[in-house]
Amino acid sequence: MFKRLVSAKEAEKALLGICGPILRTESLNLSSCRDRVLSSDIISPADLPPFCRAAMDGYAVVAARTRGASSNSPIYLDDARRIRTGQAVEEPHDAVVMLEDAVLRAGLLEVSAEAHRFKNVSQVGEDIKKGEVVLSRGHRLRPPDIALLTALGLQSVQVYERPRVAVIPTGGELVKPGSRPLLPGEAYEINSIMARLYLELWGASADRDEIVPDDPESIRRAIEGRRDADLILLIGGTSVGERDFAPQVLADAGELLVHGVRIQPGKPTAVGTVGKRPVVCLPGYPVAALAALYLLVRPAVKIMAHLDGRPPVTSARLSQKVASRPGYLSIVRVALNHGQAAPIMTTGAGILSSVARADGFVAVPEEIEGLEAGEVVEVNLFE
Amino acid sequence: MFKRLVSAKEAEKALLGICGPILRTESLNLSSCRDRVLSSDIISPADLPPFCRAAMDGYAVVAARTRGASSNSPIYLDDARRIRTGQAVEEPHDAVVMLEDAVLRAGLLEVSAEAHRFKNVSQVGEDIKKGEVVLSRGHRLRPPDIALLTALGLQSVQVYERPRVAVIPTGGELVKPGSRPLLPGEAYEINSIMARLYLELWGASADRDEIVPDDPESIRRAIEGRRDADLILLIGGTSVGERDFAPQVLADAGELLVHGVRIQPGKPTAVGTVGKRPVVCLPGYPVAALAALYLLVRPAVKIMAHLDGRPPVTSARLSQKVASRPGYLSIVRVALNHGQAAPIMTTGAGILSSVARADGFVAVPEEIEGLEAGEVVEVNLFE
Repeated sequence: MFKRLVSAKEAEKALLGICGPILRTESLNLSSCRDRVLSSDIISPADLPPFCRAAMDGYAVVAARTRGASSNSPIYLDDARRIRTGQAVEEPHDAVVMLEDAVLRAGLLEVSAEAHRFKNVSQVGEDIKKGEVVLSRGHRLRPPDIALLTALGLQSVQVYERPRVAVIPTGGELVKPGSRPLLPGEAYEINSIMARLYLELWGASADRDEIVPDDPESIRRAIEGRRDADLILLIGGTSVGERDFAPQVLADAGELLVHGVRIQPGKPTAVGTVGKRPVVCLPGYPVAALAALYLLVRPAVKIMAHLDGRPPVTSARLSQKVASRPGYLSIVRVALNHGQAAPIMTTGAGILSSVARADGFVAVPEEIEGLEAGEVVEVNLFE
Repeated sequence: MFKRLVSAKEAEKALLGICGPILRTESLNLSSCRDRVLSSDIISPADLPPFCRAAMDGYAVVAARTRGASSNSPIYLDDARRIRTGQAVEEPHDAVVMLEDAVLRAGLLEVSAEAHRFKNVSQVGEDIKKGEVVLSRGHRLRPPDIALLTALGLQSVQVYERPRVAVIPTGGELVKPGSRPLLPGEAYEINSIMARLYLELWGASADRDEIVPDDPESIRRAIEGRRDADLILLIGGTSVGERDFAPQVLADAGELLVHGVRIQPGKPTAVGTVGKRPVVCLPGYPVAALAALYLLVRPAVKIMAHLDGRPPVTSARLSQKVASRPGYLSIVRVALNHGQAAPIMTTGAGILSSVARADGFVAVPEEIEGLEAGEVVEVNLFE
């Protein structure tokens, strides 16, 4: 029997209660920093621009000497200098006259428009001042941020380490993919492959253990062998069959907080700790594992990685009625087509082909018995 | 002078007219295939499941022999076999009785519920049949797809090659980042770094050339040196200054299709071909380059990579009025805060700090003069 069924929200809360943001940091070269998160404020080491810079092609002039210039009464300068966008405007020059407003005549520059001080000039520190906070702790580095830090002369920055997630597949019937043909009763171990790809996409550094046989001692040893991990995902062996030991190992070697979640599919999910280390037990059925990954593991990893947890969503109109299990958060796979979401009609938690045909899923709330054709729903897109 | 200013839409159309989907393919190990696109249909080499499989823990039975069983009149079987979820259901067994409906008594199984044929059994090929098309050409491979193909015993698949994009920075004032301190009039070359990071995020394989001096001969040679590229991005030297040679090189060595786009910032963008190879000239000002990357290069790369081109967007309410340049598609950087979009008030195309503070941009259409405070706008999120 399951310990006590809890809602998806309660399970998420239990997991988030034991998964905090990772505070270890590392110094990384800027070119490897995309989507990494700053662990401290970046104080600019320089002014940007570092010198007075022409913002236009034209002529560098002394602004005061152009006073009163107009096309009717131009002024003639003997100390102007041809300048290109980006070049330094140097003393005594303090303005740039556009090409349209100036013409060279017999060695003198005829200026037909007055230029105020710093006209068409980017002043020192106009973009960023030395000592200013350019980007704050917690900021996710996007390509223009990396460009900006490079422009300031920086080459590396301090970022948070990615959360380390250990994925441990369990099950005597599982065979390492590609190692040999299957015998009856066997299956290739695929959940840890799916989990690792998602974990890395979501901002974790993940690795997979070898397949662990489903006996309590092997599972306990596998968990205790991963003291380096910030989060352990144990896949398989979470149901209430007589050889589904994963939650029992948590209860014996640590603390079992949740066993049984009202998600359809995904009910045999468990959450607990071993030696303060958070452990999630995912069901062995691939679609159930996928549901638990999206609903529980994704928010936990995003928090550990200091990243925004909002998943990509779109809205669409249901093309047909959907039944759901009352009291359960039902994960309905849908295919999108011209703004319509067509439910993929299968309830099998083992049916991966239903995911291959799906663009995302609709999470039908517990208190609802189903959704009608034509309803507008929020679709979580499979990344 | 610019050749003839065109709208952002016209410029995009001109570029898409010369950028088609890449048809070269490569065979890749499944573990490296996330977000890659299948170049042919995948025909399943096997049935899934490959054998009759128990869908529940219970007892494998001959369904016919349970006929009439109920809790009031149980039936006793001598040929039942204990079975776990996932194990093979073998002849003569053809159904699984759940544990709740059966109890062992003195070597016989007491069955208290009738089981029809294939009850709690996943039949051979129930998920996928041998010879069936599992995933079609053009499908982007997500983690569950990779899991599914692995389950079928596949180890590699044929995918489209990524488009190869060559990024060529030009400008005599530019210095390679980290190589030495700047002198007055110099700047670190950052646009190619930003462009490369985005190109790879968008599905291209990108590399950067060394900085090319801004003379027509060097630029022409740099372009002609990249016959391996599917698309060339030339950055800088696209304005109408006397040393802005990039568009002229296109006109002389190939065909200049667009020079000058009504984007603010981003006007000095150019599009053309050299030897049938598409070339985009991006402005040297970082914010202008970023605008042209998002509005023109992103859709082109997505098409070349066979990927869905829709950028991530959200909607928000403008916290204050925004002015824009009529006739131009205006790119207004905004910071998001609790569903409000606050415009970042700067017009400088060189001002990268405005992007660092922005979460995305609002593209104000050409025919509009500005937006009012309180208007709901679509915000394109910076990836």
